Amino acid sequence: MKRLWASRFQKPRSDLDAWQASYPVDRGFWREEVEATRAYARALHGAGLLSDAEFQALAEALGRMAAQAEPPTGDFEDVHTAVEAVLAEAVGPVAAKVATGRSRNEDVVTIERLYIRRAGADLLGGIRSLQASLVQQAERHVETVVPGYTHLRQAQPMTWGFYLMSWFFAFERDRDRFRTALRRMDACPYGSGALTGTTVPIDRAALARRLGFLGPTDNALDTVSDRDFILDFLYACLTTGIHLSRMAEDWVLFSGDEFGWLALDEALTTSSSLLPHKRNPDVLELVRGLAGRWLGALVGLSTTLKGLPWGYSKDLQWDKTYFLEASEDLRQALTVMRQVVEGTTVRADVARARLQPWTLTVELVDFLVARGVPFRTAQQAVARFVAHAEAVGRPPESFTPAELAEWLPAVDESVRQVWDPAAAVRRRNLPGGTSPDAVRQQIRKAWQILQERDEAPDS
Amino acid sequence: MKRLWASRFQKPRSDLDAWQASYPVDRGFWREEVEATRAYARALHGAGLLSDAEFQALAEALGRMAAQAEPPTGDFEDVHTAVEAVLAEAVGPVAAKVATGRSRNEDVVTIERLYIRRAGADLLGGIRSLQASLVQQAERHVETVVPGYTHLRQAQPMTWGFYLMSWFFAFERDRDRFRTALRRMDACPYGSGALTGTTVPIDRAALARRLGFLGPTDNALDTVSDRDFILDFLYACLTTGIHLSRMAEDWVLFSGDEFGWLALDEALTTSSSLLPHKRNPDVLELVRGLAGRWLGALVGLSTTLKGLPWGYSKDLQWDKTYFLEASEDLRQALTVMRQVVEGTTVRADVARARLQPWTLTVELVDFLVARGVPFRTAQQAVARFVAHAEAVGRPPESFTPAELAEWLPAVDESVRQVWDPAAAVRRRNLPGGTSPDAVRQQIRKAWQILQERDEAPDS
Amino acid sequence: MKRLWASRFQKPRSDLDAWQASYPVDRGFWREEVEATRAYARALHGAGLLSDAEFQALAEALGRMAAQAEPPTGDFEDVHTAVEAVLAEAVGPVAAKVATGRSRNEDVVTIERLYIRRAGADLLGGIRSLQASLVQQAERHVETVVPGYTHLRQAQPMTWGFYLMSWFFAFERDRDRFRTALRRMDACPYGSGALTGTTVPIDRAALARRLGFLGPTDNALDTVSDRDFILDFLYACLTTGIHLSRMAEDWVLFSGDEFGWLALDEALTTSSSLLPHKRNPDVLELVRGLAGRWLGALVGLSTTLKGLPWGYSKDLQWDKTYFLEASEDLRQALTVMRQVVEGTTVRADVARARLQPWTLTVELVDFLVARGVPFRTAQQAVARFVAHAEAVGRPPESFTPAELAEWLPAVDESVRQVWDPAAAVRRRNLPGGTSPDAVRQQIRKAWQILQERDEAPDS
Amino acid sequence: MKRLWASRFQKPRSDLDAWQASYPVDRGFWREEVEATRAYARALHGAGLLSDAEFQALAEALGRMAAQAEPPTGDFEDVHTAVEAVLAEAVGPVAAKVATGRSRNEDVVTIERLYIRRAGADLLGGIRSLQASLVQQAERHVETVVPGYTHLRQAQPMTWGFYLMSWFFAFERDRDRFRTALRRMDACPYGSGALTGTTVPIDRAALARRLGFLGPTDNALDTVSDRDFILDFLYACLTTGIHLSRMAEDWVLFSGDEFGWLALDEALTTSSSLLPHKRNPDVLELVRGLAGRWLGALVGLSTTLKGLPWGYSKDLQWDKTYFLEASEDLRQALTVMRQVVEGTTVRADVARARLQPWTLTVELVDFLVARGVPFRTAQQAVARFVAHAEAVGRPPESFTPAELAEWLPAVDESVRQVWDPAAAVRRRNLPGGTSPDAVRQQIRKAWQILQERDEAPDS
Repeated sequence: MKRLWASRFQKPRSDLDAWQASYPVDRGFWREEVEATRAYARALHGAGLLSDAEFQALAEALGRMAAQAEPPTGDFEDVHTAVEAVLAEAVGPVAAKVATGRSRNEDVVTIERLYIRRAGADLLGGIRSLQASLVQQAERHVETVVPGYTHLRQAQPMTWGFYLMSWFFAFERDRDRFRTALRRMDACPYGSGALTGTTVPIDRAALARRLGFLGPTDNALDTVSDRDFILDFLYACLTTGIHLSRMAEDWVLFSGDEFGWLALDEALTTSSSLLPHKRNPDVLELVRGLAGRWLGALVGLSTTLKGLPWGYSKDLQWDKTYFLEASEDLRQALTVMRQVVEGTTVRADVARARLQPWTLTVELVDFLVARGVPFRTAQQAVARFVAHAEAVGRPPESFTPAELAEWLPAVDESVRQVWDPAAAVRRRNLPGGTSPDAVRQQIRKAWQILQERDEAPDS
Repeated sequence: MKRLWASRFQKPRSDLDAWQASYPVDRGFWREEVEATRAYARALHGAGLLSDAEFQALAEALGRMAAQAEPPTGDFEDVHTAVEAVLAEAVGPVAAKVATGRSRNEDVVTIERLYIRRAGADLLGGIRSLQASLVQQAERHVETVVPGYTHLRQAQPMTWGFYLMSWFFAFERDRDRFRTALRRMDACPYGSGALTGTTVPIDRAALARRLGFLGPTDNALDTVSDRDFILDFLYACLTTGIHLSRMAEDWVLFSGDEFGWLALDEALTTSSSLLPHKRNPDVLELVRGLAGRWLGALVGLSTTLKGLPWGYSKDLQWDKTYFLEASEDLRQALTVMRQVVEGTTVRADVARARLQPWTLTVELVDFLVARGVPFRTAQQAVARFVAHAEAVGRPPESFTPAELAEWLPAVDESVRQVWDPAAAVRRRNLPGGTSPDAVRQQIRKAWQILQERDEAPDS
Repeated sequence: MKRLWASRFQKPRSDLDAWQASYPVDRGFWREEVEATRAYARALHGAGLLSDAEFQALAEALGRMAAQAEPPTGDFEDVHTAVEAVLAEAVGPVAAKVATGRSRNEDVVTIERLYIRRAGADLLGGIRSLQASLVQQAERHVETVVPGYTHLRQAQPMTWGFYLMSWFFAFERDRDRFRTALRRMDACPYGSGALTGTTVPIDRAALARRLGFLGPTDNALDTVSDRDFILDFLYACLTTGIHLSRMAEDWVLFSGDEFGWLALDEALTTSSSLLPHKRNPDVLELVRGLAGRWLGALVGLSTTLKGLPWGYSKDLQWDKTYFLEASEDLRQALTVMRQVVEGTTVRADVARARLQPWTLTVELVDFLVARGVPFRTAQQAVARFVAHAEAVGRPPESFTPAELAEWLPAVDESVRQVWDPAAAVRRRNLPGGTSPDAVRQQIRKAWQILQERDEAPDS
Repeated sequence: MKRLWASRFQKPRSDLDAWQASYPVDRGFWREEVEATRAYARALHGAGLLSDAEFQALAEALGRMAAQAEPPTGDFEDVHTAVEAVLAEAVGPVAAKVATGRSRNEDVVTIERLYIRRAGADLLGGIRSLQASLVQQAERHVETVVPGYTHLRQAQPMTWGFYLMSWFFAFERDRDRFRTALRRMDACPYGSGALTGTTVPIDRAALARRLGFLGPTDNALDTVSDRDFILDFLYACLTTGIHLSRMAEDWVLFSGDEFGWLALDEALTTSSSLLPHKRNPDVLELVRGLAGRWLGALVGLSTTLKGLPWGYSKDLQWDKTYFLEASEDLRQALTVMRQVVEGTTVRADVARARLQPWTLTVELVDFLVARGVPFRTAQQAVARFVAHAEAVGRPPESFTPAELAEWLPAVDESVRQVWDPAAAVRRRNLPGGTSPDAVRQQIRKAWQILQERDEAPDS
């Protein structure tokens, strides 16, 4: 196996080497390692440690390597070794200069940050697309009345547009988490050496900018020891994933046999190996189940970090699969959920039919309060009426105003208005409410957010 | 038991009620509930739903309740019920108006946000104090040389000031996490009703400002369903806690019998029930072990949230103990660690004596590179020399320049300079490095950060 | 503060002591500490280290202390100190002999094991009660047909008795987990000293038996360092909790507005502060949400243990709240779920009405297979028929045998039998199936298990 | 893509199919699926659903498929589809009969159990090998004195053999966890159908035995819904992993520059890309860090299961990577740690030199207690003496008996004996102690355990 430190030890290496090697995983950072090495070479050149000709040769070779579609296969200890080895084949001995003063400890966090920056930008785009789909659908459904639930019981009528917009704002916080995660790690490790900084007089600030970072990191020991930039990324995946799991749960329910007022495009369902009638919402279930994987990833890395001596330790090698898998899983889940949002039809008639009139009894409370009855008094009087109606088995809207007046103070003919769900929805008209106007206002704000934060991405 | 919904059900309530009640926990939010209720009453007054006299009576009673040192004891379902009941005793039937249109679903997240805002500000202060202690100690130790470790093996000499500053920057990211957590939840839930918004024409924006929020929340359903503001807070506790666990691990080691170059104040150690000679670093171990509790809290709430239908569900009642305990634990741990930083003496002589000369062999590499030897070539030549020195059992600094020249190219008399740890430290002079000047620069930046971010807290 | 090691250190102790003290938590083990101390005193007496009179005095005092309802209040470092202090007040200087050669390191794991043994036995009883309720209800419902679900879509008809019995067997595995957890920790730590064993010639085997253990532990260092007996206990809580969360989820759904074929006793529901019509299944939601707490506990302790040096460390002090809270939460949840099982009515007519005839199309497959059609062929033919029926909007049972024959091979008049759900249920008659006979067999086995494992508890 | 349910849906399938497919993962169960299918075919034959010739053809084809080294590549939905497709190519239409009445829901848990049974047996062997190495090394070191630690401070002298044996007993509990995990899942799912059992009259008991299970599962719904057999397996991996992480932590420390009384074989260390003198214990660090991955896996699956409706849901597809990776990681870690145990040399002279005489002051306590001084009195007198000795800066063994007598009651010349670590070790002679005899007894028990539990594996 090719290694960066091979010359000292005498014994033949045991089979442990294969297990210690990280190339099967970190070959995924080939592109980043090449890019970072090129920038580092330029910094060495600036510091007078590479001649013009040397730098030219290295830069050209690295340029060709960057264009390679796939990382090379081979028995390399890690991606650092692989790049150095391929470079040596291309340019000969001068390749031995390219890592002057550069430690793997600083290199690995540099390329991890480059990778996460790219993955984070992708995911920000993925969330944005899902949000845009939500808003587009919401625009069509500002007046579509469906049941709203608390405790998974029908609570009040709401509009489907209002429901969709609630997810927009939840996902907007997730985008903010990704953005702050990327901002917080926006500093370049190069120049940190193994742990105490470097003796090579590179221009850290210039090198940082060339790699697209705001500036260099502040302390070399912190730089090589810490991995909270990965935790931040995993945590942003997790909260997005929890949101997706809850959204998927709702969609599974609302499109099921019993609720039935959402219809999923057939392409989003799967049938059964045994039961010929099934239309299973497999993709939604897969998304729902994924939350466990993101939480597992965050727990895994946190546990590995807990109590770990400061300064690089090899335990940190386990950091990579977590974010590689987490970002790929999330990319897929976001794509799926966008297709779900776009491939869902609301069966407004079913929704209307299944909406229980009991959800409008709170309108009776409002009715009484508007006529001066103290709120808690009104709420308790209506509760007693509801208990009576249930006991006699009559739906609440079947009671005449006169009958209602036996249970409720201040009732007159105008009380009939309370039984119209569309009116109930329209009355929730403050900012943030479910009324068509309030939802239109939310939609306008949403488009504004999507536009603004797109123009100035990730700042 | 007093409840807000007692009037409808007929049956005597089972013993389950005691288990469902949250007052044993949420009485911790008495202060917040009173404050929020007062602001809500003012909003109702503004909306014409309370007369001047009614509002006056309520505001006065709530003012008195706010001044109470302790929440009342009693068989209340929750803190909302408790406040409403105490208020009713004080002002009579008008208390029944104070919750007009207000749902517990929106109320609970309002007072949770108020509590977390206060706890977060405390913790920001606690981290800041710890950081200030780190910087003060660092100022005294910009030239104190101690061993620096990777893989828990001596890697290179570093200064103790450099080590301390590495923690400053790590904790600065934690402060940033708390700040963004607080910023992200800086919106007032009131006006969200049970899930669809309210019909009561309160001025949501004014009410939000009165409670110190930037503005109202954007969507009522999102507001009552989501708990990611608690996750954000727990996550900030977790990363701080992981940092503390690693710092504690180092301190346990460096002050132990074998390393021995840190001395802990006796007051920070504990002796044994059986072994009379022990000086155990109990407080450090307690801090190290706490990371598990914060991770457990984040996992607990994440798991409870996973797959939960959108819209309030009672599962969310479990959200409270997590952040109540997490913030109290962290407050304590930060206090302890500040005392540790201030109560630690560096035994510079022990540190110097235990520093292994092998840690300076990388200076040989630099020496060669400065004379034009390609880095990897130099590094491998020195590695062979090290293997030889180990094999013959001689310390590396015992080799004369002539002897060294047998193993290394380009060696002359000036090679003797490499064996001075203070010089090695001084050579790491780029920004972020361990040299006295580089550390002084870090210290200046640190004081600037502490000042700036203190003047504009949590923005 | 009273401590067991006070005499050596000179300095006034800082406020850290209050934080380090465990008495606020471990006072919950007062009873165990007294019991263990009495047994230890008897062992010292047997070893000739206490005279008859001394032992008599100690034993009597400890007997009185064991009868105390509540642990004493006071500023004690921990429960060990508290017992020794109270004992000293009662019997004078001889109390100073009772801890001869006994370390807190061994003492704490002794009383933790005693506590967990008792809590484990309680929980085994709690699960058993829930299981018995399940079987009793199952006996009433071996022929009650309800929809069976996969992917939360109706899959096949099943009996409610069959459903209930599925939980019986799941919980039986949880009981097994508790039993093996208790068996695995069934060894007495006393005699382990601080870490290397004791010089006091006590009879470890006799002492172990007196405290109800099978024998002494095997290695003193392992004994004081390890906490996997607590992990085992938490893990058994967790799997039980996951089962409870899934059962609660089903119950929430089946008793909701849309499914509606389960009715919860009113005492198991709660109404709303705002919406007068609500009947929320709060207790079920609380149980569902608890799974997070058990997982959090297991994660918390696992993380604290990860990478911890072998040998007692103070980090381990955090082990206690986990199992104290976990066992109390589980005790409550099991009680609640037993009440839920007993307080639930099946609305068989609603279940029958909501059962979709499409769930019987797999009976068509069986019908064809019984007539020699290869399974996959039959399954695919029926799937095509289902697609056709959906397309034309006709329920499957409305097709005449002649119409069916256009889509399916080997159909004759007898095909009409497939549309009877009760017959479909009866056909699943192998062991483990949903047929009344198969379920009766499961019930017989269940009663046998409950009886056997009750007679020979936890062995 | 080939699927088992393709015939009903009309639309072209979206790109979601690739994401839903599990073949990239579950192709790892090819061997198990073939084996299980063969047994199922025999059961169908026994039930008269396959003719002799049909069964013969199928059995032969499956026999050939079982001998295949690698699963076929291809665009299959899952391994069930792959086996059925390959079989169809081999034997034609009769392949369509092989899944008669068999659902993927039952099939997947059957092959998962087969896989875990095999992996569990491997891991039991791996732990056993590590244990055997520990005992072999312990045999050589029953008299080798090294420092024993609590709180990572030297507490008392112990023997290295005693230390090694402590791990033997810890790992023995892990073996027990694997054994009970395998026992608890020792039941065959076949015959469960999709959820309600099967109509195919197979002999479930015979089929179970043929696949090596004790018998069939008890309830079909429980069988297809539950995954706690995977949790059990992951949990056993976790506790083993926590043990390994703590053992690795100790080994890293004891072999480090400061402790230095363990020497690792060079092949177990790695050097640095930058620092030529480093010998990093990478393999130990990798093992230490792995605990996070196992905890992450357990958390991941637990979270996915939490609140999941009973009955198969697609979320469960995520169960596979957890145990595939967990078992492979553990296999490697066990191999590594066995090599570590075998490749470690104790530097007894260094250990002896670094052992602090203060660790023997507890011998003074014992000395006084043996002369009738009450324990706590003796312990506190010695603590005062220790404080004095520290204050005057003299090592404790430099005090003459006369000097000691100023601080301690009942001292005479024989007190000199206390300063011999080997004698201190010999005095811990009760079962479980560190004395050579006590350790030899532990070793005898260990060999007996290894032999017994090997003869009757996993029962």
